[in-house]
Amino acid sequence: MKKIAVFGSAFNPPSLGHKSVIESLSHFDQVLLLPSVAHAWGKQMLDYETRCEMVDLFIQDLNMSNVVRSKVEETLYQPGENVTTYAVLSELQSNRPQDDFTFVIGPDNFFKFAAFYNAELILSRWSVMACPEKVKVRSTMIRDKLTNGESISDLTTPLVNAFLQKHGAWE
Amino acid sequence: MKKIAVFGSAFNPPSLGHKSVIESLSHFDQVLLLPSVAHAWGKQMLDYETRCEMVDLFIQDLNMSNVVRSKVEETLYQPGENVTTYAVLSELQSNRPQDDFTFVIGPDNFFKFAAFYNAELILSRWSVMACPEKVKVRSTMIRDKLTNGESISDLTTPLVNAFLQKHGAWE
Repeated sequence: MKKIAVFGSAFNPPSLGHKSVIESLSHFDQVLLLPSVAHAWGKQMLDYETRCEMVDLFIQDLNMSNVVRSKVEETLYQPGENVTTYAVLSELQSNRPQDDFTFVIGPDNFFKFAAFYNAELILSRWSVMACPEKVKVRSTMIRDKLTNGESISDLTTPLVNAFLQKHGAWE
Repeated sequence: MKKIAVFGSAFNPPSLGHKSVIESLSHFDQVLLLPSVAHAWGKQMLDYETRCEMVDLFIQDLNMSNVVRSKVEETLYQPGENVTTYAVLSELQSNRPQDDFTFVIGPDNFFKFAAFYNAELILSRWSVMACPEKVKVRSTMIRDKLTNGESISDLTTPLVNAFLQKHGAWE
């Protein structure tokens, strides 16, 4: 039985805030990063493929052997519908029945967790963990700086920075 | 830096429900069990020393090398006042500044966590994890069975069972 942390986020783009959360998950056998295909609260986002590309670069920068990107949201996505946390955890569990999954959320989602679809059922089956954001960098700060032509090298990792400088997203 | 899980409960008495939660914490370097000195929601309880004795027997039964009883609540207790989670985590962190603490709660407390003293401050500094109770045994079931003279051997561990049979609590 492996201990698996499941960390979903828009990763729009990956930031040093995400990095600080992931680094706090070093005691798990594996950390799955799940870029959200569609966002439950209706955020505007870069397209899914671009965010996946950035997450892969981000993982290269992290240099932690236990971190991988998961494609589970893609397999569950139906156009026009949100992929719920409950659906994600059920699918992961059904694919790996012997493993023990912990869903990782930020402090904001912790307080609104009761509004998640099947919140009580989730808590009856899986661990749910809120991790502090030890580095207070939000993706929106990166988008704003890019829009203003300012440096983002202190807000994200080197390969994500280089990608965004070249790609010119949000400019 | 060690990963430390902090599991507070009345342990009134320790049960197979507690055991199932603790067994899900095998990826932590250490699991601290904190019998509550006073209970925030005003439960009637066996005295603190008796519950500590039972927790020590319970830990012997667990046979997990990473589980220990913590005395931090005793050091913080002021008669007539509750020991808050915030005070406990602050004290633990101050004693072991290099370690990384995760506060473990049951599903019920997860939904009322916003009412905890300094809830937002707790989440800004420490991880908070809700663990499913894979074995649905509550301490109140054990107390009720003892009162009715029924067997509790399938609800708690052998040494705790023997202690309660001998001690006669709640009879």
